[in-house]
Amino acid sequence: MMAKVYLVGAGPGGLDLLTLKAASLIAKADVILFDALVTEDILALAPLARKVAVGKRAGQPSTDQAFINRLLVASARDNSIVVRLKGGDPMIFGRAHEEILACQNAGIDIEIVPGITSASAAAAQIGASLTRRDQSRSIAFVTPSKAKNSEDDDSWADAIVKNQSTAIYMGSKEVGRLGRVISGRGIPQSTPIVLVQNVGRANASHLAGTLGTLHELVLACGDGPIIMLLGKAFAGVVTRVRASEQPPTRAAMTA
Amino acid sequence: MMAKVYLVGAGPGGLDLLTLKAASLIAKADVILFDALVTEDILALAPLARKVAVGKRAGQPSTDQAFINRLLVASARDNSIVVRLKGGDPMIFGRAHEEILACQNAGIDIEIVPGITSASAAAAQIGASLTRRDQSRSIAFVTPSKAKNSEDDDSWADAIVKNQSTAIYMGSKEVGRLGRVISGRGIPQSTPIVLVQNVGRANASHLAGTLGTLHELVLACGDGPIIMLLGKAFAGVVTRVRASEQPPTRAAMTA
Repeated sequence: MMAKVYLVGAGPGGLDLLTLKAASLIAKADVILFDALVTEDILALAPLARKVAVGKRAGQPSTDQAFINRLLVASARDNSIVVRLKGGDPMIFGRAHEEILACQNAGIDIEIVPGITSASAAAAQIGASLTRRDQSRSIAFVTPSKAKNSEDDDSWADAIVKNQSTAIYMGSKEVGRLGRVISGRGIPQSTPIVLVQNVGRANASHLAGTLGTLHELVLACGDGPIIMLLGKAFAGVVTRVRASEQPPTRAAMTA
Repeated sequence: MMAKVYLVGAGPGGLDLLTLKAASLIAKADVILFDALVTEDILALAPLARKVAVGKRAGQPSTDQAFINRLLVASARDNSIVVRLKGGDPMIFGRAHEEILACQNAGIDIEIVPGITSASAAAAQIGASLTRRDQSRSIAFVTPSKAKNSEDDDSWADAIVKNQSTAIYMGSKEVGRLGRVISGRGIPQSTPIVLVQNVGRANASHLAGTLGTLHELVLACGDGPIIMLLGKAFAGVVTRVRASEQPPTRAAMTA
């Protein structure tokens, strides 16, 4: 039997947001290489598989991408079914390109299984659509996160447009620079922003304010992963959070 | 028992791309109001539920949104579990805002369950990441589709940025205008574009070319729903399709 690598999106974290296909592949995997954001609940679907943590978290000591690529290829040569399990959707800020190339260059068959990306789960959690027919007719997913030692390049911010929606992935680490770059694109300080933390998990929460209060909102968050939703489509969430809470505007969520 | 409406993303079509949560809710629904793009396979999970087609397809005679809103509220008053099932992710071009408001205004509890959006499934199918660390550090989802009788408003195109990726939803109906508006934003005619048709289904296929050949590519497609992926991240797909096929560059996909 030919070995095959499945590059699988695990969704934002909760087991119930896994796809049927992902659940089935995890259950029959021989080896699972998983990221830091993949939860125990999901890994428990594969009691017998060999599981290898190859997690990367922005700003933390992390497994080198070239090492992950080599491990992926070596695992596929030794095993029938290799599942490379990533948080969210592998094709959105998932370094999928590097891993697909590594497999293709090694002559190993690879199939990609999409997952729920964090922006979709965050919108569901806060009850605000990412797009609106009367306004916000586009949604851009951006990240300021960049490769180590690469030059500063703020071209990601060009897709942020006044009156449209933006989801910012992995933006909390360098929040000062983030705010400056977005503001420098002419986005008003009064633009609504919602920070959703631990999206799709039991301990999910969110904070809401405006671009002008971004730094303070990030400081009020904990250590969990944060996705930010920016744009006037989220004004209603800011109003609701402000009406129900005292500053800092924190609203605990039930999943 | 209080009635509850679940606004559920069915994903792009294939049963295997449904989430575990969506599958479980569909199986216990009393009523399912479903869109045109929801497949028989998925509806078969609910043999006993009352199923109402409220499908809309761009350019086809369609159920009025106000009627859907009223039906949603009336169904919730008569039943315990109402599943409003939409293709893709409800929060991305899903008219979710209108339906959430209708429920909230009627005092009906509503919960949103995210789904795999077509762009994620299309990227998986063609094996090309929507983002790339070395280039294409954002992905914008846009649609030229607008409400009937509303004024032309091309602000959706502002999020399309040179050298970044764009997914264009519901763009094939007015392809002439689409091409003009995008080109008018300074996007080069040589920009790679991939058209994925019937994404996530057994009859999925894709065509690839450049922005300059968009009209011809759309003409070569069939009647199924199309999502377009635009940007240099898709150059490799265009090269592969051209190498394997004669024009029109059509590649049948196996799911």
